[in-house]
Amino acid sequence: MPKKLKKPDLKRIRITDELFGQYAGRIGEKILDYQWKILTDELEGSEPTYCIENFRIAAGEKQGERKGVVFQDTDLYKWLESVAFSIAGGMAGDFEEKADRVIELIAKAQESDGYLNTYFQINAPERKWKNLAEGHELYTAGHMMEAAAAYYVITGKEKILEVAKKNADLICRVFGKGEGQVHGYPGHEEVEVGLIKLYRVTGEKKYLEQARYFIDERGTEPNYLRQEIERNGQPEFFPEFKNYDLEYSQSHKPPREQSEAVGHAVRDMYMCSAMADLAEEYEDKELETACVRIWNNMTKRRMYITGGIGSSGFRERFTTDYDLPNASGYCETCASIGLMMFGQRMASLTGKASYYDEVERALYNTVLAGINIEGNRYFYVNPLEVVPEFCTEHTAMQHVKAVRQKWFSVACCPPNIARTLASLGQYIYALGEDALYIHQFISSTISTSIGSAEIVLEMNSDLLDTGRVDIKAAVSGKETSLMIRIPGFSESGNVRVDESELDVKVSDGYIRLELSEGTHSIELKFDTAPKWFAANNNVREDAGKMALMKGPLVYCLEEEDNGDHLSEIYVEQSTEVKAEKPDERLAGKLPVLKYKGYRVKSVGVENNELYGEVKFRKEETELRAVPYSQWNNRSDGEMLVWQKAVV
Amino acid sequence: MPKKLKKPDLKRIRITDELFGQYAGRIGEKILDYQWKILTDELEGSEPTYCIENFRIAAGEKQGERKGVVFQDTDLYKWLESVAFSIAGGMAGDFEEKADRVIELIAKAQESDGYLNTYFQINAPERKWKNLAEGHELYTAGHMMEAAAAYYVITGKEKILEVAKKNADLICRVFGKGEGQVHGYPGHEEVEVGLIKLYRVTGEKKYLEQARYFIDERGTEPNYLRQEIERNGQPEFFPEFKNYDLEYSQSHKPPREQSEAVGHAVRDMYMCSAMADLAEEYEDKELETACVRIWNNMTKRRMYITGGIGSSGFRERFTTDYDLPNASGYCETCASIGLMMFGQRMASLTGKASYYDEVERALYNTVLAGINIEGNRYFYVNPLEVVPEFCTEHTAMQHVKAVRQKWFSVACCPPNIARTLASLGQYIYALGEDALYIHQFISSTISTSIGSAEIVLEMNSDLLDTGRVDIKAAVSGKETSLMIRIPGFSESGNVRVDESELDVKVSDGYIRLELSEGTHSIELKFDTAPKWFAANNNVREDAGKMALMKGPLVYCLEEEDNGDHLSEIYVEQSTEVKAEKPDERLAGKLPVLKYKGYRVKSVGVENNELYGEVKFRKEETELRAVPYSQWNNRSDGEMLVWQKAVV
Repeated sequence: MPKKLKKPDLKRIRITDELFGQYAGRIGEKILDYQWKILTDELEGSEPTYCIENFRIAAGEKQGERKGVVFQDTDLYKWLESVAFSIAGGMAGDFEEKADRVIELIAKAQESDGYLNTYFQINAPERKWKNLAEGHELYTAGHMMEAAAAYYVITGKEKILEVAKKNADLICRVFGKGEGQVHGYPGHEEVEVGLIKLYRVTGEKKYLEQARYFIDERGTEPNYLRQEIERNGQPEFFPEFKNYDLEYSQSHKPPREQSEAVGHAVRDMYMCSAMADLAEEYEDKELETACVRIWNNMTKRRMYITGGIGSSGFRERFTTDYDLPNASGYCETCASIGLMMFGQRMASLTGKASYYDEVERALYNTVLAGINIEGNRYFYVNPLEVVPEFCTEHTAMQHVKAVRQKWFSVACCPPNIARTLASLGQYIYALGEDALYIHQFISSTISTSIGSAEIVLEMNSDLLDTGRVDIKAAVSGKETSLMIRIPGFSESGNVRVDESELDVKVSDGYIRLELSEGTHSIELKFDTAPKWFAANNNVREDAGKMALMKGPLVYCLEEEDNGDHLSEIYVEQSTEVKAEKPDERLAGKLPVLKYKGYRVKSVGVENNELYGEVKFRKEETELRAVPYSQWNNRSDGEMLVWQKAVV
Repeated sequence: MPKKLKKPDLKRIRITDELFGQYAGRIGEKILDYQWKILTDELEGSEPTYCIENFRIAAGEKQGERKGVVFQDTDLYKWLESVAFSIAGGMAGDFEEKADRVIELIAKAQESDGYLNTYFQINAPERKWKNLAEGHELYTAGHMMEAAAAYYVITGKEKILEVAKKNADLICRVFGKGEGQVHGYPGHEEVEVGLIKLYRVTGEKKYLEQARYFIDERGTEPNYLRQEIERNGQPEFFPEFKNYDLEYSQSHKPPREQSEAVGHAVRDMYMCSAMADLAEEYEDKELETACVRIWNNMTKRRMYITGGIGSSGFRERFTTDYDLPNASGYCETCASIGLMMFGQRMASLTGKASYYDEVERALYNTVLAGINIEGNRYFYVNPLEVVPEFCTEHTAMQHVKAVRQKWFSVACCPPNIARTLASLGQYIYALGEDALYIHQFISSTISTSIGSAEIVLEMNSDLLDTGRVDIKAAVSGKETSLMIRIPGFSESGNVRVDESELDVKVSDGYIRLELSEGTHSIELKFDTAPKWFAANNNVREDAGKMALMKGPLVYCLEEEDNGDHLSEIYVEQSTEVKAEKPDERLAGKLPVLKYKGYRVKSVGVENNELYGEVKFRKEETELRAVPYSQWNNRSDGEMLVWQKAVV
């Protein structure tokens, strides 16, 4: 089977989905505008970000000191990438004009040698490339390259691409194994995926080579980052980096020798995404094997059922196998976006559809939970259990916000969610040499060429309710094929093509449907009955507990529906779960799930005492679960995913 | 009832107890020696502490830089206090001689104006009294005063008392409301209890007044510590103090206005101990009421069943009501020692015996767990649930050691345990005006005067096994009384005096026995049947869980007896618990408790998968619990206090 999958042209995809349409629709409508106001410090009641301001100063249009976090520029680049995707989706409104103007500003801010980073240009020119561990220069450059590639591909306008190339050329000159070059690599990976995208857009091989250099040089001895840190002495930007450990940035050993998901979760995912790209481009089996090892360690030992990763509030990182605390977990939204990026690439690299099971898990749960329905409030941290009164300073949950926030001082997540939702088409469809791949069952239309065949396809998905997906495909020019992923959550299912039942043969997680010229109707039926899940015995936190899923959606209990003290709730293992009609206050008309449970109260302890007689009173109760992604949209309060089983 | 209780003369008490005798016996035998080697950097394989070395430099006997943590001197003072108590107990061996020599050194190190602190003398004389928030100068002085008072009272030798007085006189001159005085107070309370002890020993009222000044000045506006921190700019000793919040050191408002146990737990307990002393000395009702409020908030909202306090690994502090995580909790050994100090004073202040219920809880569980049976390994942090593989860097349990340690770089706990165990008599007995008080049922002998009566008493306690306590008392000179605390854990009980059953009348938690001249035999029988406890519903962490106690002892499950994966264990609420014969490898011949339980394994999830079908297999199992204080004495492994109930 040919492995290399190409991304579809987002301009020829439209999302019509009830759930995702509601969020994607917000992007042009609200999110771009909201984020623009934040970048320009025009949002009332919000702390200034100084983002555009910094570019003005760098461009010489204003005087002043550069403010905000060292990687503040990336907010603009991620916004720009979202605008590009929104233009493709036909929902950018007048933001293309704003983007063009801001691109002029970016170009003006760039130095003549290609250097571009408002912090170092304005505040510390003598420190350029001298603090790779903390400075985020290459990370920032990577986001710029990603934005540039997207904006160019979608609009055809070359201005930002030129900026990116000039910057990439500089990076190629500065970093490398040659004499006089810096033998370093980024403390926060990202420039690698940026360079690879730039290569794919421009065909300029040196960008690909440079990405390979960064991955191959990383973690080799003598260790560049360790030496740099010794040279620099005290931390320059992040006091908590005082005892910087190399594992934090996956630079403790060369990536191709790594076998566990370690350190800062977002860094790890961006590194792995680049590794998977390089493994594909260079047909590098060793790198592929490393990717598979890390993926397996992550998804089988270190991932929450919601697709959240990074279980530690200390530096947003992976910890150790099976350490998955529900209340104090981190699960950064951006880390799950990174997981989606990595999984998408692994599917392309290996030809196996199953990678999309975890992409789907992350997308439908943690990533979607990262944003409210309105599109103006965000979660950075996504635990599986919240008691708001404990999410206070000094508790183990001090990093947890029990309510979505307007913005963050480190605001990586909001624009990252925006660019992900705005480019959702790339996770739904992919182009093979002789087939159109369908990876997600999100209602949408696509028209595309597959070789000399033209296909116009319309997918109407009722996956999240009945599990039924209807596809209409019009093929012309030549016969072609559909490769349809069979989701891991569906234990049974059937496929009808043009009204006849198909004998389904699944290979590498796909079924192949040959489509002759003409129109076809395909009906997929997946098993999306609500199901209870248990965790591996080694996850001590979830011992004796169950989590409820329906299709790819993890469900949770909210105080809104079930009262507080959710920790008192018990459920029979065999309890029958009924899907009921949606709560109109939630997105996507997703069914609400109802079932019988128990409240077990300790009634032997007097109200004002802390400890007392064991006397549990068990009372039957009706429970009502909603999709995890939807929590905290109706009211503030407790939330719980893993529920105690009656054993 | 007369409230003021005096401490007994430790020289006239001998501990004969099976359990505590085993630990107390180690003090002269091993602990003093072990700790001496650490203070003098003679312990092989241990990091140097530089403790005595620093004094040598300060005394001008050596040249060099002062090393170790800023409050390193206190290790020596606490050791010295332990030596004093050990001399009283007749088990100091040749350490009195060593102590005398080290006192000479201390005296030589003291400056002519009374100043004494090796860090500031050697490394930063210009910074004296300039960093009260971080510098621990007054804290260090307080420990010196406590040691001096004990050493003088027990040995009659005045040398160290003179040093302490000279130092206290300086502090009285430097700090106060007067013009030219520093209007400050310590960032870490301790000098207050030190000054009060010095007052009680010397009768010098100004020391008491000075202690009152420190408590009364604390937290008033304009806030001294806030201003000092602004003045100083960056942290000098502890980078984590960058965003120093005043609540951390209970200086957010005046102590007498406080009503919750907040901030750093040890600091809070030392402050409260001084407040209770002052309330008693000045008959200050307002201060007493504040003490009662803080005590109640702590013991009814913020204390583990083991008497551990401070639920947060972030800065060893109290968090919020009912936030009592079992695995990531802190429960510093020193904080529970502080709780004992506070409770002892509250009983004296209020005349209520019930304060000793929590003193006992802390002593028998968290404090005793702080040290191994051998006396050479220590816990600083005492969680109620340990899975060693999760107590690694970056997890929420990163501050937890799953194995007792040799020593710590911040080594407050080991010498604090030593001085507490070496002076145990003060928690067992107290002297009232007309009665001898018995607060703890720890086998021991005491001879003392009560007014013009002489009493020689021998207590043989089998409390922890059968609940029976036999007391023989010989009274001469005049009739007298015994005030015997009825422990809160005992729901029934009876008292026989000279072979006749007594009609027990409990008042303020005590029974009063009038004893005529002559010998008497008293037999107490308390209810120490094993009992299961539940926590208040608001402690979400313990919902549906039970903890097993027998008398004052909290029991736990260890991997040693029950295998690993203790999180799989369930117990019926009505399960019958049998006391069996002790495990000889544990201290004190404490009964081991056996009962039936279940193992609930998730067998629907394949070994290499993370999530899967809910299929719990429940198998009966025999469980064996040991006292919490004894855990990790036989082997390393998992430990669990709160066990899941079958509901």
